[in-house]
Amino acid sequence: MAGLTRADAEAADAADPLRAFRDRFVLADDRIYLDGNSLGRLPVATRDRLAALAAEWGEQLVSGWPRWIDAPVTAGDALAEVIGARPGEVLACDSTTVNLYKLAGAAIAADPPATLAADRHEFPTDRYVLEGLAARGGLALRLDDDEPEPRAGDLLVLSHVNYRSGALRDLRAIQARADAVGARVIWDLSHSAGAVPVGLHEAGARLAVGCTYKYLNAGPGAPGYLYVREDLQDGLRSPIQGWFGQTDQFAMERDYEPHAGIRRFLAGTPPILGLAAVEEGAKLTAEAGVDALHAKSIALTERLIALHDEWLAPLGFELGSPRDPALRGSHISLRHREAWPITRALIERAGVVPDFRGPDSVRLGIAPLYTRHVDIHDALQRLRDLVALGAHREFDATPGRVT
Amino acid sequence: MAGLTRADAEAADAADPLRAFRDRFVLADDRIYLDGNSLGRLPVATRDRLAALAAEWGEQLVSGWPRWIDAPVTAGDALAEVIGARPGEVLACDSTTVNLYKLAGAAIAADPPATLAADRHEFPTDRYVLEGLAARGGLALRLDDDEPEPRAGDLLVLSHVNYRSGALRDLRAIQARADAVGARVIWDLSHSAGAVPVGLHEAGARLAVGCTYKYLNAGPGAPGYLYVREDLQDGLRSPIQGWFGQTDQFAMERDYEPHAGIRRFLAGTPPILGLAAVEEGAKLTAEAGVDALHAKSIALTERLIALHDEWLAPLGFELGSPRDPALRGSHISLRHREAWPITRALIERAGVVPDFRGPDSVRLGIAPLYTRHVDIHDALQRLRDLVALGAHREFDATPGRVT
Repeated sequence: MAGLTRADAEAADAADPLRAFRDRFVLADDRIYLDGNSLGRLPVATRDRLAALAAEWGEQLVSGWPRWIDAPVTAGDALAEVIGARPGEVLACDSTTVNLYKLAGAAIAADPPATLAADRHEFPTDRYVLEGLAARGGLALRLDDDEPEPRAGDLLVLSHVNYRSGALRDLRAIQARADAVGARVIWDLSHSAGAVPVGLHEAGARLAVGCTYKYLNAGPGAPGYLYVREDLQDGLRSPIQGWFGQTDQFAMERDYEPHAGIRRFLAGTPPILGLAAVEEGAKLTAEAGVDALHAKSIALTERLIALHDEWLAPLGFELGSPRDPALRGSHISLRHREAWPITRALIERAGVVPDFRGPDSVRLGIAPLYTRHVDIHDALQRLRDLVALGAHREFDATPGRVT
Repeated sequence: MAGLTRADAEAADAADPLRAFRDRFVLADDRIYLDGNSLGRLPVATRDRLAALAAEWGEQLVSGWPRWIDAPVTAGDALAEVIGARPGEVLACDSTTVNLYKLAGAAIAADPPATLAADRHEFPTDRYVLEGLAARGGLALRLDDDEPEPRAGDLLVLSHVNYRSGALRDLRAIQARADAVGARVIWDLSHSAGAVPVGLHEAGARLAVGCTYKYLNAGPGAPGYLYVREDLQDGLRSPIQGWFGQTDQFAMERDYEPHAGIRRFLAGTPPILGLAAVEEGAKLTAEAGVDALHAKSIALTERLIALHDEWLAPLGFELGSPRDPALRGSHISLRHREAWPITRALIERAGVVPDFRGPDSVRLGIAPLYTRHVDIHDALQRLRDLVALGAHREFDATPGRVT
């Protein structure tokens, strides 16, 4: 970290090799947006592609389908570049929740696990999927309070980056330990893909899912994705058998026979508009390059932590994220007992958009494609001034509904 | 049917109370589009809403979520008007396939059926879902070659309108017979909603699913929907437990407890762009009114059948759909041993877009919101002339990939 003045931040932006990517997004106002880890910005290319695709639907009608029909694979291959998978290992489809259900259901049917396991503090939808599968299948469910360690016979769901703290797991090492003891892991990449390298295939990862509306900028509720290592695909069957997973889809009058390869994990008709947004977001990310994005993420989060130590720690803040950049993703949680009213005041009085994660965290998402060093500087300065003045005290202290 | 001349068709259009609705759609060229039962046209309001929603994402970012988050229910309530459900009985979400899986899985868990049953000639994805559930759950599966009759202990999936023949089932009568013998039915409304009255709640229907990209004009791969009769909702649990179905979604740190009412059938984050298209399509349909649409559908299909008898039967065509309008939906299958090359020739030489359904049907979808009497007249005249001249013989006789 060269220095902590605003001039230092400006110099860092001027030297940033990714600085031109900010202009690839719609920038509607001057708010400092630090919630791209919840909902990413709208890429200009995506706005244009969505308009063009609507026009294509209007003009070409059903004759557009031959071009649209491979969208889950095309968007999946674009995502594969971002998460270190091979072409044909990733499908964009359904929601993250449904994709996790499909992969966990397929893994259970192929080889019943001794135990379904997760971190008790895992993102809730992942736990809920496992709770449902355990209850229906009469399987044991283990929720660990500390870091879950793979045990023989486990089917373990693990987030690569923790949604609250931003802690980054060592995917390669955990995958190796799981393989060594005979446990299977389904990785949830929702909070890591697009901000840190994932390297799924090289790490030997078997199964993964993720969402696309965070660092991948595919829009509210855009389709999720799933990854199945290529050698495992034909040994697994999705519990949700649909016509897009059938081997000869338009033959119509035959029994279900899953398609070879990754397509067997499709179910219903794919959402063409949403998939176009996924493809554009993934391509933009791949163009910037995951390693460059990660380097910038580290530089930005290091600045944020240094400013926290200098300005915020004296005001009662505590860092809720790992200090070692090798152990964190691209969002930082700042803990404070008044985190809720501080979050509201930042949004409504300071033009800074973070989010709140209960019970006590202001969560700052650092999307390296469009976040600048001066954004970090200005946001933390405003946060400091606001709390020093007590400006957050005019907001209700009781957390309300947040997304 | 007043008469079969083109002047008669023009007069029928002039007297059509729904004629103004055609102008609510993007009409890009002069092709006669008779495949709205596969992919409906783009409503102008939907095109504009999608552009506005993309702008809203770009400008409001995460603060748009409080307005977006209820979209599955809002779009579901708009659909409820079209299918005769009550507010709070319908959700727009996921694909039709996933929705069928959720409802069938919920019904199986609540009360294991003696047999899963369907028509062997049912739309394939419906059969595939049942085949998968039967295999995983160790349940018997019965595929009937003739009209499936509900038997005690059945969980039966039935299309309201058959995707190939256009045959319309008597939903109320079948539901009553099912109730009388102790069978449950999940209705698939994909080929009926928006073209014929459904009247789910009045008929006592328990469960239903459907798609929105046909007569409801929500676009390629738009979200599907599900219906659960209000008194049954709290006794059912989706097999796919996700954070949007949780009772207090943002509490995060708790076990899964399904939301009261219809929301428990949500899984992952809802697709906001797609749901806006569903809502617009459903509202446009409701504005026209299902009874008026059905009356127009009957008038158009009666004209089509009369012209078939006059012009096409002598050329080797055979009607593949019911003659009695009380027994059919809004598409007509014309059977001919050269149906495939005739379909190709219609599209490529005659400016008419039907689709082909194997082995031998030219399928003509009559979407009453935008199809005119002159379209029927001109399409059948061109079809007659083309076959009479043998113009289809220049096309390959072997069916290729179709959607």
